[in-house]
This record gives sequence, C-alpha cells and structure tokens, in this order.
Amino acid sequence: NDIRAYARDVVLKEIEKHAADGLGRVDYALASGGAVVVKHSEPYLAGKGSNWFVMSGRNGVRNEAEKMLKPSFGEPGQCFALKGSSGFVEIRLRTAIIPEAITLEHVAKSVAFDRSSAPKNCRVSGWLEGQNIEWSYDAGKMFLLAEFSYDLEKSNAQTFNVLDSAGSSIIDTVRFDFTSNHESPSHTCIYRLRVHGHEPDSVSMMPVQS
Amino acid sequence: NDIRAYARDVVLKEIEKHAADGLGRVDYALASGGAVVVKHSEPYLAGKGSNWFVMSGRNGVRNEAEKMLKPSFGEPGQCFALKGSSGFVEIRLRTAIIPEAITLEHVAKSVAFDRSSAPKNCRVSGWLEGQNIEWSYDAGKMFLLAEFSYDLEKSNAQTFNVLDSAGSSIIDTVRFDFTSNHESPSHTCIYRLRVHGHEPDSVSMMPVQS
Amino acid sequence: NDIRAYARDVVLKEIEKHAADGLGRVDYALASGGAVVVKHSEPYLAGKGSNWFVMSGRNGVRNEAEKMLKPSFGEPGQCFALKGSSGFVEIRLRTAIIPEAITLEHVAKSVAFDRSSAPKNCRVSGWLEGQNIEWSYDAGKMFLLAEFSYDLEKSNAQTFNVLDSAGSSIIDTVRFDFTSNHESPSHTCIYRLRVHGHEPDSVSMMPVQS
Ligand SMILES: [K+]
Ligand SMILES: [K+]
Ligand SMILES: [K+]
Repeated sequence: NDIRAYARDVVLKEIEKHAADGLGRVDYALASGGAVVVKHSEPYLAGKGSNWFVMSGRNGVRNEAEKMLKPSFGEPGQCFALKGSSGFVEIRLRTAIIPEAITLEHVAKSVAFDRSSAPKNCRVSGWLEGQNIEWSYDAGKMFLLAEFSYDLEKSNAQTFNVLDSAGSSIIDTVRFDFTSNHESPSHTCIYRLRVHGHEPDSVSMMPVQS
Repeated sequence: NDIRAYARDVVLKEIEKHAADGLGRVDYALASGGAVVVKHSEPYLAGKGSNWFVMSGRNGVRNEAEKMLKPSFGEPGQCFALKGSSGFVEIRLRTAIIPEAITLEHVAKSVAFDRSSAPKNCRVSGWLEGQNIEWSYDAGKMFLLAEFSYDLEKSNAQTFNVLDSAGSSIIDTVRFDFTSNHESPSHTCIYRLRVHGHEPDSVSMMPVQS
Repeated sequence: NDIRAYARDVVLKEIEKHAADGLGRVDYALASGGAVVVKHSEPYLAGKGSNWFVMSGRNGVRNEAEKMLKPSFGEPGQCFALKGSSGFVEIRLRTAIIPEAITLEHVAKSVAFDRSSAPKNCRVSGWLEGQNIEWSYDAGKMFLLAEFSYDLEKSNAQTFNVLDSAGSSIIDTVRFDFTSNHESPSHTCIYRLRVHGHEPDSVSMMPVQS
C-alpha cells in the first residue's frame, strides 16, 4: 500500500515535470518569453517542403529561426535548419541573466525520419550586449559558457552546466556554434536551445560587480 | 508482480488524463470548440515583445484574448494580459450548458519568469444571452457561479465547483472578474479559464424550467 | 526498493513514449515531415465557427485538411470535417515507404463534446504515384493496406497492421475511405491519420521488386 502511494507520487511528479516544458526549468531563450534570434549562418533551403521558402524577417534573420526557441512537442520538422555541418546562431535572451546551464534538444529517436542532421560538437558563449547603463561596463566581454558533444544515444534534451570559468558573469546574448553534426552532408537541424539561469539581484550585484 | 501491474496501470491512467487536456474534463470555454471572448477590461500593452501590438479584432476584442481559451502547454507567455490588478473578461461559451465547475490555470512555478501577475481573488458569474427562442425566458438573469482565490502554492490548474445557489441554471456566457493579483503592480495574466458542465437535456428541461 | 526502481522506470518509459508523439513510432503522413492532403470528398462547412470559412488552397484542397496530418494535443476541434457519413481523403506521404501499420486517432472521450462524428468502418489503400524513375514500374498498382472499424470504447489512437496481402509493396500515396461513422447524420471528423513503415533500402529492393 505504501508502495502504491509511492508509485502514484512518482507518476504525478514526473508528469508535472513533463507538463512543465519537459524539464521544469526556466528558459531565458524562449520565444514566448521575448527571446529572439538576431543572427545566424546560412540557412538550409530544402527543395522539398514549401515552408522553407518563407521570407526573411528583420536583419536577414529567417522566420523559421524562431522554431529553435520554441517547444517541439515531439514533432519531427519543428527545427531551424542550417546549411552544412558547421554554423552558428546568436540569440538575444529575454533579459540579462547569470547563466547556469544550457540545454540542447533534438527530436526523439523513435519518431525521427533521420537523425544525422543533429549537431555534434558544440560551443556556447555569451556576453552582455547592453542598452542598460548600469551593466554596460561588462559589455563586449565574451564568456565561454559550455563546450559539449550532443550524444544521439542519450535522452533527447541534454543539459550542460555552465563552466566555472564563466563565474557569475551577466549576459543577455548567447552564441551557439556547432563545428560538426552526426554525418549529414547537407544540413544541421536545431530543434531547441534553452538557456537556464537566474536574474541578477540588483542589490547584491552593485558593489560586487564593480 | 501484482504491484508492477498496479504501477503500470496508474502510469497509463495518469498519462491518459494528462494527454486529455490535463484534466480529462470537457471545457465549454475552449476556443477550438467555438467559444469566444466578447468583452474585456483594458489590455496590458507591454513595450517588450512585439506580439502585444497586434491589432484588435471585432468589437474591440484583442486577438491575444483567445490565448486564455487555449491550452498553454507549459509555456510562459501564452496568456492574455490585462492592465492593473483588477479587471474582467466575458466569454461566450460554445453552447448553452448547465455549469458544474470552473478551472483557472496559470503557468507552472518551475518554468515561470515571474508569477506575481497571477490573478488572486476571483469571481465567475454566468447568464443566458440567448438567440434561442426556447430558452429566452431565462435571459438576463445573472448567476454567481463561483468565488475563489487562486493559490500559487497549489497545482497550476485549480478547479472550483459551481455554487449550489446557481442551481441547475442554463448559461451560455460567463464573466470572469478578478479583484486582486499576486502583487504585480502593472498587469494580470490569464493563462486559461475553463468552464465545465453538461448540455441541458431538451426533454427533461422543458417542464422543469418553465 | 527494487519495486520503486521499477515503478520509476515504467513512468519514465511511458512519459517518453507519450512525449514522442504518443506512440513513439515514425509517421510518414506527418505534415511537418512533408506529407500533404492531395484530394478529399466534400468538406463539412459548419455555420458555427468562422474557421470553417477559410478558403481552399491548391487543387481545391481545403486548408483545414492539414489538421489530420498534425498532432491534436487533446484538443477537440483539431480535425478535418467531411460532409456526411462516408467519404475519403488522399495523402501524399513524405517519401516512398514500405508500409507496416496505420493509426487512426479521434479526440479522447473525456474531453469530447460529441463523438458521433468519429469514423467507423474504414479502408486504407496505397500506391506509388512516382516521379521517381527507378520505382515507376510499380506505379498505378493499388494495394489494400487495411480494413478496420474504429472502436469508441478503445484508446483514442488505434493502430492496425498492414495486411499480409500488401506484401512489401512500396507506396508514396494512401487513400483513406470511411463508409460509416458513429451516427452523426451531418459530418465525420478525422483527427489524425498516421502511416507507419520504413524506407526501402535501395540495395535490397532492386532485384527483389523486379
Ligand atoms: K522547436
Ligand atoms: K493559454
Ligand atoms: K489533428
């Protein structure tokens, strides 16, 4: 009976986590939270699928770029495809944060048509672009946040902690670089990139950061 | 072994409920079912996030209003934001029903940027707007359906039974009033409001209601 | 303790399957994968719900047709409605495959307004439409893939294996025919049709198929 209560508890907790964006962790790179892709390498314009031919938005950023800042809900195709096996994307976060972890997600193995387009070796860096006078002394300084390899055999959302060397730097922009993929010669698909962290406490940061 | 079967059973039942709109209960205020927002207090037009600047639809109802009649799928930002800490929304239901319960949903704690914009003290009333000759004798009579407080510490979808005083009144329109929120001075976000109940049985209602 | 580990394991596996499009099975009829509805019987244009009045796309195929090639996420109304209790839809798949199973899905009982519009007796056939020189010898040959009855008492996504008589035929187009529904006199709603299978291995197929 005790076991039954336990089983029920585990189920409810895990479903709650699943319902809370899969990880139950705040994502400052979420489109519906205000994050936007501001720059990217050459997109992949497949002949098949007319949805690739939608036009570019402001600053030459393609509309499909937003897909990598949104949930995929287990659907293959809900990704941003870039040309070749290396490239990059720059994302302006919802707000300035102290980053803690990065999550890279690809489509689940069981429903994928082909997973060779998944990114493999990746690097995420971040900096403070500013606009905000009080933090501008930090602007321009770039921090390496994480270097990792996306593993096709592990769970489809893979989380990597930010390197200690990044300290508790404040950033509002990240750059995601991939230098290889899982053997697709034509393109690399990014299903979703999340940036976890917390907003700097305005009281504590003032004297500490100066 | 018996326990294993039990565990499996609990899991499948809970996932089924989760997959069935989270609660497994019919919602007559669902946009895809035909419900619409017909009136609301002043919307909150945040400077940040260009999606707030979409234009209003018919009768001055903003397009984002529909968000509160749709699932949120664990995404922060998928809500209708109204100015200040009090306000209201009126919703025409899919069809005339005898209401049984109201569900108010906010974004899950674990993924929220800020939950101070959640409504706190709420009141839901309903009436029959009509169009339908056979029920029009009831038109204009307003029923208090529920009064409740949304609790940030409880599960994110909170269901409240309709008051006995509402009897088995037939309604096709509800008004959701909030008189306070969880301390946001600028705005209040409504992620989703659901109205549960059943359609009046045309045979039984005739003599009883006259 | 062993039991606890087991319970946790079951939960995580089932949630993973749920998150992977509900079945954890590749679907070659998925819109986001490139599949399209190419032909259908007369659509049902309900007076209620302005979304039914959207215009037709290319070849007289209505835009709502795409709904049946997309996930429904437990929402009633996310379907393609056809007039009457019999009709058909033809779908061009993402690519040519050897079909293995068909899944027909309707909205869950617990959240449905009315399930009388569910298809009942169904037949799925398939053929190779071609464009591709190497497979064109097969073009025009039509295969009966499955005949089944959708059961309102069973789980809402029902999977049927392809008949042995279809052998390992290669198809890129399917036709879904329904000859009855669950007693709705006006219309039949198709929430989703999936086509499972695998892509022919170009090496093995050459000699075998000729
Ligand atoms: K996505
Ligand atoms: K919503
Ligand atoms: K659907």
